[in-house]
Amino acid sequence: MELNGVEIEDTFAEAFPIKIGRVLITAIDTYWAEIAATEATGFGTSVIMCPAEAGIEKFVCGSETPDGREGVYIQICHMTEKGLENQLLARIGQCVLTAPTTAVFDGLPDSENKFDIGNKLRYFGDGFESKVEKYGKEMFAIPMMEGDFLVEANIGYTDGVAGGNFFIFAKTQPSGLMAAKAAVDAIQKVEGSITPFPGGVVASGSKVGANKYKFLKATTNERYAPSIKEKIENTAVPSNVNAIYEIVINGLSLEALAEATRVGIQAATTVDGVVKISAGNYGGKLGKYQINLVDLF
Amino acid sequence: MELNGVEIEDTFAEAFPIKIGRVLITAIDTYWAEIAATEATGFGTSVIMCPAEAGIEKFVCGSETPDGREGVYIQICHMTEKGLENQLLARIGQCVLTAPTTAVFDGLPDSENKFDIGNKLRYFGDGFESKVEKYGKEMFAIPMMEGDFLVEANIGYTDGVAGGNFFIFAKTQPSGLMAAKAAVDAIQKVEGSITPFPGGVVASGSKVGANKYKFLKATTNERYAPSIKEKIENTAVPSNVNAIYEIVINGLSLEALAEATRVGIQAATTVDGVVKISAGNYGGKLGKYQINLVDLF
Amino acid sequence: MELNGVEIEDTFAEAFPIKIGRVLITAIDTYWAEIAATEATGFGTSVIMCPAEAGIEKFVCGSETPDGREGVYIQICHMTEKGLENQLLARIGQCVLTAPTTAVFDGLPDSENKFDIGNKLRYFGDGFESKVEKYGKEMFAIPMMEGDFLVEANIGYTDGVAGGNFFIFAKTQPSGLMAAKAAVDAIQKVEGSITPFPGGVVASGSKVGANKYKFLKATTNERYAPSIKEKIENTAVPSNVNAIYEIVINGLSLEALAEATRVGIQAATTVDGVVKISAGNYGGKLGKYQINLVDLF
Amino acid sequence: MELNGVEIEDTFAEAFPIKIGRVLITAIDTYWAEIAATEATGFGTSVIMCPAEAGIEKFVCGSETPDGREGVYIQICHMTEKGLENQLLARIGQCVLTAPTTAVFDGLPDSENKFDIGNKLRYFGDGFESKVEKYGKEMFAIPMMEGDFLVEANIGYTDGVAGGNFFIFAKTQPSGLMAAKAAVDAIQKVEGSITPFPGGVVASGSKVGANKYKFLKATTNERYAPSIKEKIENTAVPSNVNAIYEIVINGLSLEALAEATRVGIQAATTVDGVVKISAGNYGGKLGKYQINLVDLF
Repeated sequence: MELNGVEIEDTFAEAFPIKIGRVLITAIDTYWAEIAATEATGFGTSVIMCPAEAGIEKFVCGSETPDGREGVYIQICHMTEKGLENQLLARIGQCVLTAPTTAVFDGLPDSENKFDIGNKLRYFGDGFESKVEKYGKEMFAIPMMEGDFLVEANIGYTDGVAGGNFFIFAKTQPSGLMAAKAAVDAIQKVEGSITPFPGGVVASGSKVGANKYKFLKATTNERYAPSIKEKIENTAVPSNVNAIYEIVINGLSLEALAEATRVGIQAATTVDGVVKISAGNYGGKLGKYQINLVDLF
Repeated sequence: MELNGVEIEDTFAEAFPIKIGRVLITAIDTYWAEIAATEATGFGTSVIMCPAEAGIEKFVCGSETPDGREGVYIQICHMTEKGLENQLLARIGQCVLTAPTTAVFDGLPDSENKFDIGNKLRYFGDGFESKVEKYGKEMFAIPMMEGDFLVEANIGYTDGVAGGNFFIFAKTQPSGLMAAKAAVDAIQKVEGSITPFPGGVVASGSKVGANKYKFLKATTNERYAPSIKEKIENTAVPSNVNAIYEIVINGLSLEALAEATRVGIQAATTVDGVVKISAGNYGGKLGKYQINLVDLF
Repeated sequence: MELNGVEIEDTFAEAFPIKIGRVLITAIDTYWAEIAATEATGFGTSVIMCPAEAGIEKFVCGSETPDGREGVYIQICHMTEKGLENQLLARIGQCVLTAPTTAVFDGLPDSENKFDIGNKLRYFGDGFESKVEKYGKEMFAIPMMEGDFLVEANIGYTDGVAGGNFFIFAKTQPSGLMAAKAAVDAIQKVEGSITPFPGGVVASGSKVGANKYKFLKATTNERYAPSIKEKIENTAVPSNVNAIYEIVINGLSLEALAEATRVGIQAATTVDGVVKISAGNYGGKLGKYQINLVDLF
Repeated sequence: MELNGVEIEDTFAEAFPIKIGRVLITAIDTYWAEIAATEATGFGTSVIMCPAEAGIEKFVCGSETPDGREGVYIQICHMTEKGLENQLLARIGQCVLTAPTTAVFDGLPDSENKFDIGNKLRYFGDGFESKVEKYGKEMFAIPMMEGDFLVEANIGYTDGVAGGNFFIFAKTQPSGLMAAKAAVDAIQKVEGSITPFPGGVVASGSKVGANKYKFLKATTNERYAPSIKEKIENTAVPSNVNAIYEIVINGLSLEALAEATRVGIQAATTVDGVVKISAGNYGGKLGKYQINLVDLF
């Protein structure tokens, strides 16, 4: 099929299960909320060599936060429960508790799965902390240099989905990049999903495993590498394509991933020089979920 | 002494040795250079529970970079050589190689200490990578979806200094925070130093160890906690102070730290509601370096 | 009454009628949409000496724009119809048509009042322009260096309200400023209103006319000037207040102004060091509309 | 000649004399300095229908400003002395005096040409203002709601140059746009010049006068319009070019313009999909200055 004159390949994105903790950070204004969220979700593109996958889900205004201040939802993702708990503890403790004016709330209040992150962070108070009932929630108040840091006792997590994706084929690198940026801008407004890579964009889409260097879990997807398309027999790069970008999406549900994929592709096709949209799948080697591109429209 | 009507306490900041790798990232424009640098230096406030301390040192223009594009210097800091190598490999591999349009250069070309990061990242090319001589440097070109990623074969590191710091005492929390922000803006322009905490500011200045929870390496510095000043016998919080922020500085040399401390304090004292500048020292428990505040002016 | 421990004075803001044109700008991504909107609404704080009052109302995503791209609504305000038409023509022609990748749509499609801005801008095409039916709208396509610029034939305007306002009294200047910033962050998310001053904040709240320099339409409101409070007999500055900021709000309706005032005050009261909220009224000298602060809560 | 594989056409940019006022704005931090500068230089792309041409020249740190705070230099440009004085008065009075925490200094202290802007703005003080000697300068202190506004008595201006320019020819619109952005990023670091159009980029490069609509001073440059290249006999658009962007540069001297042109072109040629650089000249109809592109390298 075609969308805005761009071919949407009849293929599917392969995604896999992951554990996701969701945290609501509030702060004195949007600038400082974003600062804390950015630090807490950094070094978090792929579980291949990062300690977690992480990203900013959405910004919310004071009418949607317990303390009436500007807020931001972040997601921290890990393959295991234990790993997720460690990452929530470390990232909230080192990057949000330390950040100016923040407070931390459970971003999944309806989830039955909880880690007692607040209850563990309270030890930083060295005996001066106190349990408080605030905004109808069980919280800890930890006296610090800037004043009291407030953190909810428990933070929820859930079974989510990682690795949702699509590929943008473009005539020039800037066409692909601006289409990727437009896609990320659009996905940013979708509830429940994050794009964990830098600025939401992957320049280095990979294949599972390796042909030559077998000690690696992931290596360049040479079939999609424009600079060597003449050397690769079964190259997937059309002759008029000189750059491909991948958007990787994690989310709280398959539905959130599908919606993010849909609005992302729609946005990408509005950019001049984009010639085709495809997606990455690995014969089931990567995961059990499938998002069929053509079915989204 | 006084500066702009603000008391500078006659005390010193205690700092300690650390290993620092310095990387120059270039990209298509400043936006994407900053995106890559921010992701690569995230989750990097303190070695207490982060895998590294990391930050953006400075932005440079095309006349100062090998490939004539906009660039940004980042520093990655770790207590051990092995840990630093792992962090450079993981952060460059997962957060810069994956970011759109980036190239990576050795940020310490004159240092004799090198890790062969580029030589290790090249395996991502799965045999399609090639060694190239470019800009007078030994580099690897790795074919990827967006095109070729260029990375210098070796990345330099050095013996640096961590934990440089000063405290801003303020009448109100926003006064302290804006003074901290002004200080960070000023330090951003100093060669050789970074402020690894969120937005460069620490809301939760700590003491070494604990009184009560002995299993923790660092806990709240209760003597500097305004909300409990009435309960702490030897509180360091004056009666008119309601918030204290700490600026923590790492750098390539003690001189870089001292200069960053000087310009940061100078900037902080221009903000209304700041009443005093002090610094953190721990009787030598933290480190061997001392920066005397009064001597800076 | 009190809100979050802050006194809300029992007074009202005085506002006045104004003509408002509303424009939807779309662009390749949010960055370039904001660039165009910022240029088009600059030099637009107050009709006292600016050619118009202007501001960014809100950002919208591709699902809410005719061409499926990211968008931003701006408002241009003027006391007269003729003046408004001139300003819409000049600001769209010089600041949006000239900006990369933009398209321009009527931001008030339901209004019966229209200026044929697109029909006038088309002359820039020097005969190469064409009328097109696109997105169900009557538009002009003007061939330019970057490609075709699309602009809707007619742009709507309406009778709006200007000069909605409230005052933030604070112990320190940064407390007042961060409260003002938090208020603007909150108002930014309210439909139908803008805050035309720099960053949404007024540092120099004025009175109508002058005591001494009668040739001026507006001069400093000395009763609210903290630095001279000891010299002014009927000063309105409490002894513990050292800075006051005003938020000025324009909007499509009195209801939009009231809602913006409400969320702005709510946000401001969450900031440490804020002691009182008041508003500016001038005995009816300024305008016929009144927004009573206490009634908002 | 070729630069980075891109053809630099052997032609020249035509520029013309203009009057330039230069203002140094300082503020509590870079955020608020930029806010004031952006408002004051908005609606300032071209004297064709804007009240002035205006832009941000450069940011400076506290060691380079009289009051030790972060600062930003802006330029306001007008064809006449009287028009320039009016614009300086209105833009500083409405967009900088009104902005939080700003102070205003003469940005051309060595120029003998001065307007007594500070001396005129002082009337806003309605008799409560005072002349003060501060930072070795003659200034006025005007009591306002946020505290005292400080403005230097006189602001310098000089004979500058406007209309410096170059064209970027690209295969796709995003290639041209990202090259334009990279050029603006580079020029931003050059002393003495501004790029007054939105984000520094012109999407609608024009010719002087019109063929058909003679009442217009400037109309689309149809020879450079890609969408109609097949219809224009003497089109300047090569068959592989689908978008052209113009960078317009004003500056304090012809040397500043030449240097900005040089670094801008250099940066633009590093972007994929750029095929040619040219410049706009109008047979002397526009102005007396010429900058020859090939001579710059």
